[in-house]
Amino acid sequence: MTPRGRRPAGSPDAREAILAAARTAFARDGYTTSLRGIARDAGVDPALVHHYFPDRAALFSQAVVGGVDSIDVTLDPAVIEQVRQAEPSRQGEMIIRLFLTTWDRMGRERFTAVVRAAMSDESVIAGIRDVLVGVVIAPVVAAVAPDRVELRTQLIASQVIGLGMVRWVAQMSAVRDADREALVRAVGPVVQRYLTGDLGPEA
Amino acid sequence: MTPRGRRPAGSPDAREAILAAARTAFARDGYTTSLRGIARDAGVDPALVHHYFPDRAALFSQAVVGGVDSIDVTLDPAVIEQVRQAEPSRQGEMIIRLFLTTWDRMGRERFTAVVRAAMSDESVIAGIRDVLVGVVIAPVVAAVAPDRVELRTQLIASQVIGLGMVRWVAQMSAVRDADREALVRAVGPVVQRYLTGDLGPEA
Repeated sequence: MTPRGRRPAGSPDAREAILAAARTAFARDGYTTSLRGIARDAGVDPALVHHYFPDRAALFSQAVVGGVDSIDVTLDPAVIEQVRQAEPSRQGEMIIRLFLTTWDRMGRERFTAVVRAAMSDESVIAGIRDVLVGVVIAPVVAAVAPDRVELRTQLIASQVIGLGMVRWVAQMSAVRDADREALVRAVGPVVQRYLTGDLGPEA
Repeated sequence: MTPRGRRPAGSPDAREAILAAARTAFARDGYTTSLRGIARDAGVDPALVHHYFPDRAALFSQAVVGGVDSIDVTLDPAVIEQVRQAEPSRQGEMIIRLFLTTWDRMGRERFTAVVRAAMSDESVIAGIRDVLVGVVIAPVVAAVAPDRVELRTQLIASQVIGLGMVRWVAQMSAVRDADREALVRAVGPVVQRYLTGDLGPEA
């Protein structure tokens, strides 16, 4: 028997309703939010959540991180090739533009949800680290950096993460309200330094 | 009647025991951790927590952020004067060294606790923003920057926050294990760019 007011399992919008409820719940409570609560908010039976999403990580990934078109772009080998072939003075700008575009599409709520989830669960930190560094930044750095690929990759990650924290989480007004291309010009040379510049002696 | 095993109110180490228990609890549960739980872990009566710390913010501030000697240093007007009088090529290094030294003293547990607390409470984000930006970075930037003090301050904050996230929260190995002075050399010129460099047109 379907409880009054719930969407039946065959409803075409049940999956979308679960994703929308999950997005709100993860943003509000972090990674450990109640899956039963998500089902209740979506107006579906809890079993339907498990039907569409095998586990919490899958639901989180698709509700909060996924569904953003431009994230796929960063995994495209053509992007790495574009950066590799660009003028050295433009590579840093291309990388920071890629992140700002992706994160502006995510918006404050989803960006904050990812950070909040990461702070509540070590496995989420590891997941974000693996995707951000291993899949997105490291291949580009490996294609153009003269040396010290790991350190350069992580320094770029530090600037990219920090810019997101200031623009979307702390909402500091000058960075929050800045035009995207103005930020690309201000931060691009920093990413370029980390990518190909002289970082000084190692110890 | 004092329950068995609890420290009496007059015990000289009761305050320290509360601070130690609070540090662990904030790191584990975030800003909304139970104050009764802290009292229990410290082996004191809950009333004693309120006796020493008027509210949650005061306990958090002193347990997690406070008690680090070098934090006071950043508030010293002499530091601003030192940076102002330094060679322009050394100012960025001085600023990033100040942060790395402070945060290395805080250590992973306390740094992570601050970020976790910030993600669970908007008032903590505002507090950190006011201290980090208003008290520490902005006065130095105002003393040496040619223009756009607010944007420069926030860009420096973005690099400083991101470096902390990568070194202590995400624990990416090359940055986590790097010698502090090696990081100062790698990141110092970036802070210098944000402090006095040409950031490009505003829009």
